[in-house]
Amino acid sequence: MSNKQLAFLDRLTEVLPEEALVHDESVLSENSRDFGQLAEEPIRPIAVVVPTEVEQVQRVMRLATEFGVPVISRGAGTGVSGGVHVLGPAIVLNLSKMNRILEIRPDDEIAIVEPGVINHDLNTAVAEFGLMYAPDPASYKMSTLGGNVATNAGGLRCAKYGVTRESVLSLDVVLADGRLIRVGKNTFKGVAGYDLAALFTGSEGTLGIVVRAVIRLRYLPVDQRDISLVFPSLEEAVHGVQLIARARIQPAILELVDHATMQVLDEQYSTNLSASGGAMLLARLDGYGALREEDAIRDVFAERDVEVSPSGSNGATELIEMRRTSRGDTKDDAYRTGEDVAIPKSKMVEYVHRLQATAKQERVDMRMISHVGDGNLHPTFSVEPDDGDDPLGRLHRAVESSVRIALEMGGTITGEHGVGLIKKDWLPWEQSADVLELQRSIKGLLDPLNILNPGKGI
Amino acid sequence: MSNKQLAFLDRLTEVLPEEALVHDESVLSENSRDFGQLAEEPIRPIAVVVPTEVEQVQRVMRLATEFGVPVISRGAGTGVSGGVHVLGPAIVLNLSKMNRILEIRPDDEIAIVEPGVINHDLNTAVAEFGLMYAPDPASYKMSTLGGNVATNAGGLRCAKYGVTRESVLSLDVVLADGRLIRVGKNTFKGVAGYDLAALFTGSEGTLGIVVRAVIRLRYLPVDQRDISLVFPSLEEAVHGVQLIARARIQPAILELVDHATMQVLDEQYSTNLSASGGAMLLARLDGYGALREEDAIRDVFAERDVEVSPSGSNGATELIEMRRTSRGDTKDDAYRTGEDVAIPKSKMVEYVHRLQATAKQERVDMRMISHVGDGNLHPTFSVEPDDGDDPLGRLHRAVESSVRIALEMGGTITGEHGVGLIKKDWLPWEQSADVLELQRSIKGLLDPLNILNPGKGI
Repeated sequence: MSNKQLAFLDRLTEVLPEEALVHDESVLSENSRDFGQLAEEPIRPIAVVVPTEVEQVQRVMRLATEFGVPVISRGAGTGVSGGVHVLGPAIVLNLSKMNRILEIRPDDEIAIVEPGVINHDLNTAVAEFGLMYAPDPASYKMSTLGGNVATNAGGLRCAKYGVTRESVLSLDVVLADGRLIRVGKNTFKGVAGYDLAALFTGSEGTLGIVVRAVIRLRYLPVDQRDISLVFPSLEEAVHGVQLIARARIQPAILELVDHATMQVLDEQYSTNLSASGGAMLLARLDGYGALREEDAIRDVFAERDVEVSPSGSNGATELIEMRRTSRGDTKDDAYRTGEDVAIPKSKMVEYVHRLQATAKQERVDMRMISHVGDGNLHPTFSVEPDDGDDPLGRLHRAVESSVRIALEMGGTITGEHGVGLIKKDWLPWEQSADVLELQRSIKGLLDPLNILNPGKGI
Repeated sequence: MSNKQLAFLDRLTEVLPEEALVHDESVLSENSRDFGQLAEEPIRPIAVVVPTEVEQVQRVMRLATEFGVPVISRGAGTGVSGGVHVLGPAIVLNLSKMNRILEIRPDDEIAIVEPGVINHDLNTAVAEFGLMYAPDPASYKMSTLGGNVATNAGGLRCAKYGVTRESVLSLDVVLADGRLIRVGKNTFKGVAGYDLAALFTGSEGTLGIVVRAVIRLRYLPVDQRDISLVFPSLEEAVHGVQLIARARIQPAILELVDHATMQVLDEQYSTNLSASGGAMLLARLDGYGALREEDAIRDVFAERDVEVSPSGSNGATELIEMRRTSRGDTKDDAYRTGEDVAIPKSKMVEYVHRLQATAKQERVDMRMISHVGDGNLHPTFSVEPDDGDDPLGRLHRAVESSVRIALEMGGTITGEHGVGLIKKDWLPWEQSADVLELQRSIKGLLDPLNILNPGKGI
């Protein structure tokens, strides 16, 4: 450790309570990374700071600015893009102990939270008021709202209820130099000045440290109907998505499960899905219209070669829960990579065909689950370590092709996971030099010393 | 006109088709302002440019940068905050002739539009595909999508469907120096880089000129049920809003009409509303759940002293249309000012009581309509020109009080109209010096010469 870093740590010791500054090797190790798989191994941070008060975060940032030491803020570290990987000398600011729900205002339909509150815990707390927090990333049982805000997290029910941005009304942000600002508003509507709350949302810890959020809540649906539909082929399942849309039905959840994923579910849960058809849709209808929407879906497919789950059975609900954990909570490894593109919905079949061709060419396995209601696709590529020449090279090429093809179709390199480190090289494939430069300029305004999660996001 | 301005106009003549550069006095006059009422009279712009192609906008901005001449971009000019008022030497860039719907992609649920497309025209065009564009400012029959984007326009059905930002996926923006950039994505989800589309949305023409937008569409509701509820008092009507929320009903429209506004409607439409009660709620339920939601509302108020419109009658629908035009399309004048705060929903009764006290103290009239589903209130204050001492001073004090009280309650100075010129002095009441400074810095990055609608918005 350099003398400067040692001096910085000395000063941190002076301004923080003893328990907030952690040097324990196992804690350093746990805080060196998220779930993202990267060729380069993360290193241990200089120290981990676990603040419990906003003022502590401000003190840390004042000193970080004074000494020019990078700060990586994080929550549970469930991200999959390497957004909190430590690759150079830095401290980690772990916000998971700032986990108080400060206020729930049922009649205002808002909650005020610290960044370390677990997504699921907020939902549990507000349910008794007939309210919910809508965005539901696969990690919702573990991930923090601060992390959700940092990545503008998505989830299954975003097509109906919006992504994290649509639930973030106001943010308190500690800036690089330790100043505390409040952006946004407490109300659903508000157009005073530029939309700085949206600017910080999804900025992956590169513009400031979110220490408090005013969150919009939604009504907990009075009714919920789940339905599964098994189609002979993927093409017919995708066509089914269009038929549901043309009936103007807005499911809360609409997931497309391909045949390979049905086989994975069969292995994990001893089901027999893969024998029943070529692809599956899982739909959740909710709210006052749930029953009528379920009926409408049954009408749409009544005369078609589709196996629809019987009314009132629990099967579809179980399948949705199985699907939730079939990929989202599974860590990738060197030989398996899950992707996260979004494409215009009409291109779905063409996209899958081109991915299948790519997988065949590179001799890798491909399976795919999709938040098909909003065109957000998660193809997973894998290869056996001992299978032929350069398996990792083939895997890498297949993954890159999946991203390039999505872009050719007018899509994006990341629907909901964030750029982090892993997708940074791809960002110039999607965005022009001028747009990249503008983002670097904004970063420069807010973080002139480049100490906030440097090298990530943009 | 200065020599520099004359030289600038000469160069514009060289790079624009003849019909795109207008000097006609009546056109200059029409383009000098929007509907906003300001003590200072707007002046005529140096010229009005009416481009039909993106490249023309780029040429204008290149020359504006070269000569340092301010550019005020505008659409229909239906804004009420003076956002496009001309107060110093400037040209006006009127985008209303860039009004092509470039593409409708029903299966992708998007439309690609030029900025001059009228909100209502887009809705008409997409209706045949079973789709709609959700944000519906009162001016929707006249206002342009470019103007809607510039102000992040709201409307009646925002609580359910979101404001303009939630329907803007991607923007093409001509920067101050004439460069053209594309920000955002074509898909509902997408988190690559900072949310620049949100940054430009609502920036009131101060950061760039929007020349193309990718717009998210929603499903046209399969069903729609309107219902009116007349309450003995305003307090009971507001309590009724809470009862509807607690039944977890999300109306597409929920408007609160106070007694004074009922009287205005009576005068305009020869109705007899004001005799029937003290305040009114107008609700529109839509989608597959409309009928069940209507029934649920009837259940909620069955045992209460509330006059509910009979099922299947057309009265509530007519009232909603009457309400739409009862304020939104009415221009203010020197002696009548409509405000646009938003406050936490639970504070509604307290807010109205304090406003009534203020109106009494200042001897001005006050009436109020509200998008009560999202806490966005439009109190209107008026005074008779010949009524006592300093009527304008009293009016002004009452208006300022209404804004200060909203802020004391955690609200905002503008729910949906924008800051423009008229609310600029109030922005520091809501936002800290650091936040204002950050916005000025962002403005400085994108518009270093301060030629994009200078002096507005922030």
